[in-house]
Amino acid sequence: MPYGSKSPDTIRKFSVEDTQFLLSKGVKAVVVACNTATAHALPQLRQMFRVPVVGVLEPGVEATLADPACQRVGIIGTAGTIKSHAYQHELAMRRPDLQIYAEATPLLVPLVEEDWIDHPATKMVLREYLKPMLDKGMDTLVLGCTHYPLLKPLLKRILNNKVRMVDSALTCAEHVKRMLAEQGLERTAKGKPKLEVYLTDLSEHSEELAKRFLHTEFGKVQRASLAS
Amino acid sequence: MPYGSKSPDTIRKFSVEDTQFLLSKGVKAVVVACNTATAHALPQLRQMFRVPVVGVLEPGVEATLADPACQRVGIIGTAGTIKSHAYQHELAMRRPDLQIYAEATPLLVPLVEEDWIDHPATKMVLREYLKPMLDKGMDTLVLGCTHYPLLKPLLKRILNNKVRMVDSALTCAEHVKRMLAEQGLERTAKGKPKLEVYLTDLSEHSEELAKRFLHTEFGKVQRASLAS
Repeated sequence: MPYGSKSPDTIRKFSVEDTQFLLSKGVKAVVVACNTATAHALPQLRQMFRVPVVGVLEPGVEATLADPACQRVGIIGTAGTIKSHAYQHELAMRRPDLQIYAEATPLLVPLVEEDWIDHPATKMVLREYLKPMLDKGMDTLVLGCTHYPLLKPLLKRILNNKVRMVDSALTCAEHVKRMLAEQGLERTAKGKPKLEVYLTDLSEHSEELAKRFLHTEFGKVQRASLAS
Repeated sequence: MPYGSKSPDTIRKFSVEDTQFLLSKGVKAVVVACNTATAHALPQLRQMFRVPVVGVLEPGVEATLADPACQRVGIIGTAGTIKSHAYQHELAMRRPDLQIYAEATPLLVPLVEEDWIDHPATKMVLREYLKPMLDKGMDTLVLGCTHYPLLKPLLKRILNNKVRMVDSALTCAEHVKRMLAEQGLERTAKGKPKLEVYLTDLSEHSEELAKRFLHTEFGKVQRASLAS
């Protein structure tokens, strides 16, 4: 962390190591719940590993195009995601008539991690980032980073309910459910499923952050030892 | 990068690898030009390697105490630097009567990297971070992160010339010069010295950032291959 400012090569290297670690735990499928890693590493991961690998980009694109009336789509994400042109490309392939605007918004992850999700400074930063796209009449805004849904309440007020927000989290979960059913991979065991959380680095801050994002109780966060 | 949010173990691991890389290039001395790495890794680096290793903390402390009239010292830095209590400890050892206030300011590095060094949002963030220390009558502010000197013009306006700012960069350079002289390590070769810049990751942004920080011309930025 963070992936958003790293080079494509490094993002791919880390993504492969992360996936290898998860496979060593015996997982049946992998979700790349990071837009930057999805944008740069998904094709390679799918080629290298046999388990299904789901990214957040495709569900995000599906959710965006679910409203056929959308004409002017804005995308915000990390520098890595925006520079990859992955969203722009996928959207343009399926809807060549779409007006697409993209803006790298690298300050949003630090602001969310600082928990300033309703702070005047965050509002000021968002207004500045969104202005060019609002000026162009954007009707849909893609939240192209898994940190951004925490900014939804503030974004709603700034966008004044005039712009539809697309958050790929829910679509992604539905996507995974459908995929597991199609491939006969659904859970058959009874009893409460278990959640294990691993991080590649344990700072004091990380457990608190994990709780804020997951809104659920889980055991001790464990450290993942990667290849490097 | 960034070191400021990583765990002490990871900071030490990376610092050792960075130093090994520099030694493989035949350097005669190493400057740890990062407060977080200095705070967590300097003792270990000095123990492990034979070349002189200079950190930014000691010069910063010296510069702070150079004005004997200082009574209330504020320190800003990354979460890692502030949590290490390294500055607090060094200052308290030398001046037990000092009032010391410390504040982790994790948004400042992203704001500097985004080049918003004179932006209203940055001003708002700084005001909020500095308020508790200003309320307590701070007379000296230690810029405990090598990114922060780029915020000096804005800080000067916020602090209204009433608070002395301490930037360890100049003191650190003087420190290195003196150390090289004392140990007989000064350069004897004639001709223009050469600067080589290596980064552990090359993103598109990195060369631009390096130029902004170093204010000088240098050849192509090269990638450092570390142990991991």
